[in-house]
Amino acid sequence: MCRLLGYLGSPVSLDHLLYKPEHSLIVQSYQPREMISGVVNADGFGVGWYHPEKDTEPFTYKNTLPIWNDINLPNLCRYVESKCVVAYDRSATPGQAMDFANCQPFNYQNLLFIHNGRIENFRKTLYRKIRSILSDEFYELINGSTDSEHIFALLLSLWQENQHLTLESALRKTLLTLCDLAQRHEVDVSANVIISDGHRLIASRFAANSPAPSLYWLRDDPIFPNSVIIASEPLFASNWTAFPENSIMTVEEDCDIQIEKI
Amino acid sequence: MCRLLGYLGSPVSLDHLLYKPEHSLIVQSYQPREMISGVVNADGFGVGWYHPEKDTEPFTYKNTLPIWNDINLPNLCRYVESKCVVAYDRSATPGQAMDFANCQPFNYQNLLFIHNGRIENFRKTLYRKIRSILSDEFYELINGSTDSEHIFALLLSLWQENQHLTLESALRKTLLTLCDLAQRHEVDVSANVIISDGHRLIASRFAANSPAPSLYWLRDDPIFPNSVIIASEPLFASNWTAFPENSIMTVEEDCDIQIEKI
Amino acid sequence: MCRLLGYLGSPVSLDHLLYKPEHSLIVQSYQPREMISGVVNADGFGVGWYHPEKDTEPFTYKNTLPIWNDINLPNLCRYVESKCVVAYDRSATPGQAMDFANCQPFNYQNLLFIHNGRIENFRKTLYRKIRSILSDEFYELINGSTDSEHIFALLLSLWQENQHLTLESALRKTLLTLCDLAQRHEVDVSANVIISDGHRLIASRFAANSPAPSLYWLRDDPIFPNSVIIASEPLFASNWTAFPENSIMTVEEDCDIQIEKI
Amino acid sequence: MCRLLGYLGSPVSLDHLLYKPEHSLIVQSYQPREMISGVVNADGFGVGWYHPEKDTEPFTYKNTLPIWNDINLPNLCRYVESKCVVAYDRSATPGQAMDFANCQPFNYQNLLFIHNGRIENFRKTLYRKIRSILSDEFYELINGSTDSEHIFALLLSLWQENQHLTLESALRKTLLTLCDLAQRHEVDVSANVIISDGHRLIASRFAANSPAPSLYWLRDDPIFPNSVIIASEPLFASNWTAFPENSIMTVEEDCDIQIEKI
Repeated sequence: MCRLLGYLGSPVSLDHLLYKPEHSLIVQSYQPREMISGVVNADGFGVGWYHPEKDTEPFTYKNTLPIWNDINLPNLCRYVESKCVVAYDRSATPGQAMDFANCQPFNYQNLLFIHNGRIENFRKTLYRKIRSILSDEFYELINGSTDSEHIFALLLSLWQENQHLTLESALRKTLLTLCDLAQRHEVDVSANVIISDGHRLIASRFAANSPAPSLYWLRDDPIFPNSVIIASEPLFASNWTAFPENSIMTVEEDCDIQIEKI
Repeated sequence: MCRLLGYLGSPVSLDHLLYKPEHSLIVQSYQPREMISGVVNADGFGVGWYHPEKDTEPFTYKNTLPIWNDINLPNLCRYVESKCVVAYDRSATPGQAMDFANCQPFNYQNLLFIHNGRIENFRKTLYRKIRSILSDEFYELINGSTDSEHIFALLLSLWQENQHLTLESALRKTLLTLCDLAQRHEVDVSANVIISDGHRLIASRFAANSPAPSLYWLRDDPIFPNSVIIASEPLFASNWTAFPENSIMTVEEDCDIQIEKI
Repeated sequence: MCRLLGYLGSPVSLDHLLYKPEHSLIVQSYQPREMISGVVNADGFGVGWYHPEKDTEPFTYKNTLPIWNDINLPNLCRYVESKCVVAYDRSATPGQAMDFANCQPFNYQNLLFIHNGRIENFRKTLYRKIRSILSDEFYELINGSTDSEHIFALLLSLWQENQHLTLESALRKTLLTLCDLAQRHEVDVSANVIISDGHRLIASRFAANSPAPSLYWLRDDPIFPNSVIIASEPLFASNWTAFPENSIMTVEEDCDIQIEKI
Repeated sequence: MCRLLGYLGSPVSLDHLLYKPEHSLIVQSYQPREMISGVVNADGFGVGWYHPEKDTEPFTYKNTLPIWNDINLPNLCRYVESKCVVAYDRSATPGQAMDFANCQPFNYQNLLFIHNGRIENFRKTLYRKIRSILSDEFYELINGSTDSEHIFALLLSLWQENQHLTLESALRKTLLTLCDLAQRHEVDVSANVIISDGHRLIASRFAANSPAPSLYWLRDDPIFPNSVIIASEPLFASNWTAFPENSIMTVEEDCDIQIEKI
């Protein structure tokens, strides 16, 4: 289980988003509250953000250290401002390499992707099966060994084959494909995902054959006006709403929200 | 607060000592039970050991990662056997660099030293005062910025000036010097220390102006016969004895134990 | 280009093998002499060795730092003695992750494997093609993204299918398979390999469509009596012999050597 | 020997300054041209910059890896723009810890400081002597063990005692103090320094009892108009001017330059 965070709204200092909240990703790293499995989220972290003005590819910053021990992150967070941010704390599956290639967010062109959940016993179950249905382009782009990166590659591959789809439909198609594989091979799959193109956030709370990890959203909080925040655990006391299980939420640039069942 | 471990006895595989116990240093790293302050001990770790046959300087292995994420440690622990081992998990004082120079055990010639505790607000209180009474040799050897390394340098400097002292008397003199400084400058000091020359373990449970951190010992357990183990937290259910506060224990090669009040 | 080292013979301290020679792997890291491409070998390193007495799986120690900056390696090398060692300095292909999963030696059961060379433009050429012919077992074991690890997986997979083969024949079959793939897809392949089961060293100097990287061997040197050393660059001035191109050398426990053309 | 870079002028992307030049700090890291000692500069690096619009403390980014292996730096450099930048590649004195605390630039309030050079046999010569003349405030701020950090602390301490001094006069006083210490204790000292308050760059090329390391400057190059660049080695072919030995240069916000002998 990892801890996810997504933000869309008025330009915000990363400092304000990552360090200031009383139950920030820093605190969730060593003292999380709603873990289904695992105890801490200290196996690395990552942040991705879009330039507040320029239309360029997004930026990422990742490390394999616990988030609280990164001496560069406070400096970076003081400097960076963005309207669209994703961030996560990693809790690695035991035995998986503590490598940069396994640190999220994953990036492809203008997309950022983070995932919390798991494919049960991934290497022995769906690893080769997922790879076998990827297009060459996305097969070749995989650098690491996580189920998360393979889910992202699956999404990209399915979207490329079905270019008429919206991003949220591509995510739905990906989750249904996973669900189908999970049922055929009798494995548990959970996939809380946040994906963005810099203008919108798409998020899912999803599980096949198992309970879905926690996920909450908050809109127009006085501390973060004109914004939507999505998080595995509430960052501070406020009117957070739990996602319905097996649903996809779309957040538009005007903070309009749509939730649909998968 | 860090977590300490000392072993003296029959040759033991590091694997057996560090990984196998149900409440090992690995588990104490992410799920400790008896912390006075802090939540986890994930700011690095270190192991020191003596060659089981050759009379050479001891060996250390250190890292700034959480102990559970070190991919080399399991290999090392399968290979190394020793009659005399110290090990620790670090919980860094906030703001202190996550640097190798701050990782214990500290080593000087045939000595290994680990410390759990703290000098309150060290930089502003006793940092320069302790350095000012060190001999040049030990002043120049300090590489890092921890109170722990300064306590070791103080011990070495005091012992050099009083070469007739036993190691346990040098430790006592060091703690009394710290106690005196603590009282004069009204700061809390705690110093659970394990020090070894490869033939004996000397350990203290000590605090001035504050409660001492936990410390236990166990002799001749069926799982580790002909040995003494000293640890911040019991490694497994057995007849562990709590150290009396403000005492120094000496363990001889035949596992004979002496405890004296400081 | 990486720098390789293999040793088989009388028990030797790793210190003696890795640090003492005037043109050691430490020096070859920042000042190599015979590189076909690249300038330094500072993208990590690794050592693998077998227990001098016990019949257990081998041990590895790896890091992503330049070899000269590892503070633990000198300690480890003072402690470890072995009759059979492989070691390498990494010079990463630009763009490849500086991750532990990409550090050699690779290990499977009793085997250690190191590779210097490359498959040209690997991701776009033979990556998926090699994976497609692997058995599930070895497909699932791949952790990283290097051509080296895929060549090892190919060897393991081919050997499993042809269990009557000797290890040297399995290596030959692997290189011929690579050669065939290289010709069909018009890519350069070079594969200087050292592989061991703890009792023998098998090494190749091999290239298809390009010159083979340098490789030398030395037997019964006065400094390392009763031993064979194989290295990308001579470790010190002595009677080193250059491998013939496209050949496989087998070194037996009695230091008997056989060289065959591929 | 390290490699230094300072920039003052029109807002520039860090990407443009650090990655694009043909003999960039990346190239100088593995293939420097004008080293007095050492072969590569691969023992970490650091960048410091000021916000192009806001009047806040500067930002730093540091790592202990070779600069070419940092996966975050390209992202950071695409994002950051600044009018005032310092950067350096580290070549560590053998035996010194590869720690963050020893990575430059050093920062105090609005100041950034980088140093290339050395105090001969620092620990045994001027280490305790310099510390003994520091004010408590700057004594307590020292985190690492480099001569560089101690020179910065000396500058801060001398400047605090002589608040009427300009920054360039404080640097001069620091170098003269070092020169005096060097002569009294018969040690070589060299100190190429770049220091900034975000509005001006002050740089020295200086040595006592030894040749000074190389240092160059370039003003109003067509590729970097309205700017001054200072560097240990020219970043690209152009009209670079070598600093006179034992001089201090002051660069104003309008790129006006003054050079004075020390």
